[in-house]
Amino acid sequence: MTFCNPGEGVLAAEWTYPSAMNTTRPLGVTPVPVPIDEQGICGVGLRKILAEWDESARGMPRPRIMYTVPIGQNPTGATMEATRKKEIYEICVEFDVVIVEDDPYYFLQEGQYTHKSSRSISRTESDEEYIDNLVPSFLKFDYQGRVIRLDSFSKTVAPGCRLGWFTCNPLFAERLERQAESSTQAPCGLGQTMVTSLILNWQFNGYIRWLRALGTQYTQRRDFLLDCFSDEFHLEVEQEHKGAWKGNTVYRAYAVPRNARAMIEKTSARAPMFSFVPPTSGMFVWMQLHLNHHPAFPDETPVTLEMKLWEKVALAGVLFAPGRMFSCEDDGEASPVGSGHFRVSFSNVPFDTMKQAVGVFATEIRKFWVPL
Amino acid sequence: MTFCNPGEGVLAAEWTYPSAMNTTRPLGVTPVPVPIDEQGICGVGLRKILAEWDESARGMPRPRIMYTVPIGQNPTGATMEATRKKEIYEICVEFDVVIVEDDPYYFLQEGQYTHKSSRSISRTESDEEYIDNLVPSFLKFDYQGRVIRLDSFSKTVAPGCRLGWFTCNPLFAERLERQAESSTQAPCGLGQTMVTSLILNWQFNGYIRWLRALGTQYTQRRDFLLDCFSDEFHLEVEQEHKGAWKGNTVYRAYAVPRNARAMIEKTSARAPMFSFVPPTSGMFVWMQLHLNHHPAFPDETPVTLEMKLWEKVALAGVLFAPGRMFSCEDDGEASPVGSGHFRVSFSNVPFDTMKQAVGVFATEIRKFWVPL
Repeated sequence: MTFCNPGEGVLAAEWTYPSAMNTTRPLGVTPVPVPIDEQGICGVGLRKILAEWDESARGMPRPRIMYTVPIGQNPTGATMEATRKKEIYEICVEFDVVIVEDDPYYFLQEGQYTHKSSRSISRTESDEEYIDNLVPSFLKFDYQGRVIRLDSFSKTVAPGCRLGWFTCNPLFAERLERQAESSTQAPCGLGQTMVTSLILNWQFNGYIRWLRALGTQYTQRRDFLLDCFSDEFHLEVEQEHKGAWKGNTVYRAYAVPRNARAMIEKTSARAPMFSFVPPTSGMFVWMQLHLNHHPAFPDETPVTLEMKLWEKVALAGVLFAPGRMFSCEDDGEASPVGSGHFRVSFSNVPFDTMKQAVGVFATEIRKFWVPL
Repeated sequence: MTFCNPGEGVLAAEWTYPSAMNTTRPLGVTPVPVPIDEQGICGVGLRKILAEWDESARGMPRPRIMYTVPIGQNPTGATMEATRKKEIYEICVEFDVVIVEDDPYYFLQEGQYTHKSSRSISRTESDEEYIDNLVPSFLKFDYQGRVIRLDSFSKTVAPGCRLGWFTCNPLFAERLERQAESSTQAPCGLGQTMVTSLILNWQFNGYIRWLRALGTQYTQRRDFLLDCFSDEFHLEVEQEHKGAWKGNTVYRAYAVPRNARAMIEKTSARAPMFSFVPPTSGMFVWMQLHLNHHPAFPDETPVTLEMKLWEKVALAGVLFAPGRMFSCEDDGEASPVGSGHFRVSFSNVPFDTMKQAVGVFATEIRKFWVPL
């Protein structure tokens, strides 16, 4: 409402946080999907869209604003490293695009996943080293005041706080204050008091200690979930050579027949059921379902198959988020062609429940994949 | 956003809560002012607007929704009694208008003001009588499901709660839930927990007892503030014969020279400086300034004079709200012609400070009224 006029567009990752996109449509603002890879918004894709913008074909002027969740992105779990951020920032300078950096998962940085067989759990860095090793914000590269950074206590204290803050240049800040005054007016004072008391009591060092511990806990959760997948499926690790995950370590999951471990050789020769890139931040694993390998494809579309599998898994007691709801566009096609997605959250499930859930999912997807 | 399309209008009292109106404009929705009297929105005025609606002259279709604060209205303090509500409701049935009843001051019902010389402070009613004696909500007359009632803990627990609820038919309720899910998502959980615990602890009877005590306290505040005016000004009480307050008991305030109480006779013969109707609910006195009697009128407009006086009073340490900010229209003229307004709040000022403030105001308005 503050940065767009009706009839304009906002650039966003092709898979993105649906609640953010939902706020644009009633204002007559249209999301413009930008291709992503394992680091989120892709520089080449962004530049191409902006450079080749055809106002009459698109039915709107070239967007002047971009929405991005750069760390542990919702839903893909992608994390944008410093080099990519610098590249994206320079493109935004060139085409005069304001960057809205929505970064609730910032402090849930988990590092690379390594299989449990070779994992080391020691973290000996000092507080200063911890801070220095965090992936930097877009603010670090912002020499023009075109970044609006959104922080939140949602993922570090509790979602129920409904409390956050923005960091940006004074011109934008004044407008955003006016916007808040004429909508929510203020966050809940009781919540503000409790969170503020907590931080004042912790002091800076205590707050950093809390955030570090939280990051460690999320690392353990991420590792445990992926270990479960590794227990339940035959995972093949390989370098991706094309598509969104190009150049990245991708895990491909193949069915392991329950009663015939010896059949691994045979089953692994079959096509993979799903793939994922282990996230390095946040609370989500973005599972790409290879529905083009499903027996019913192409008689049934990936969208239909995604929902059918989702329903079976849900009825069996496990709730993943169907990928389609994160499509940046209302009528967006799942991409790449022939695939579906699930967003798997490891935020607040006890370890034994997580293990059980992956087991249930493994059973359901195996049953689902069998031709009738 | 839920009930209007861009280009449509919303009916509202000509003086109304500005934060509500501020939400309409960025959505391309235009407030349509309805004349008010001492009970708020006036049936005759509302019917006239709807019956004579000229779509091409107005540049929009006849509004299908009306926003109203029926009890202790902000800013006028007006309270709409049952008979008027029934009349307004039937007009809304006739012209198919949905009523949004924003009622945060509902439980601050104070009854008629009587001068301290003849005041009785005993309230002997039972809880049941207390509830029965409250002015009813629009919901009481709603046989078509066209009322959306908004309640709030803002004025009964604390504004910082940022917590309230709506009561309406299931069709609207479902839409409003979706609207909340894609904007604020949820009120602060910490605040919800605290308010809920309070109510659960109080139980129904304790909650009613709290509300009754609050109403009594506001009655005392209202009475004390008006007593202060009666001490600092020469007040004449008379029946209004024309205009918005027609048929109502209006207090007209004349200057009392500080050092010559004997001059009352003389000064009261001069024109009044301001008038007000004692509110029967809420926390506001709506002061009509008779700026057409100011020595600088009409060389200086009422709008200019209102702001000049407001500034002098503010610099002297007393903060009233200038009337103009409550105009339903962006460029609305103060009405009636030649007058200005102040909204005086008696919500949370200690009694001695309130007395001091009225003294400061009396000094400033007397100085302001003297020709240079």
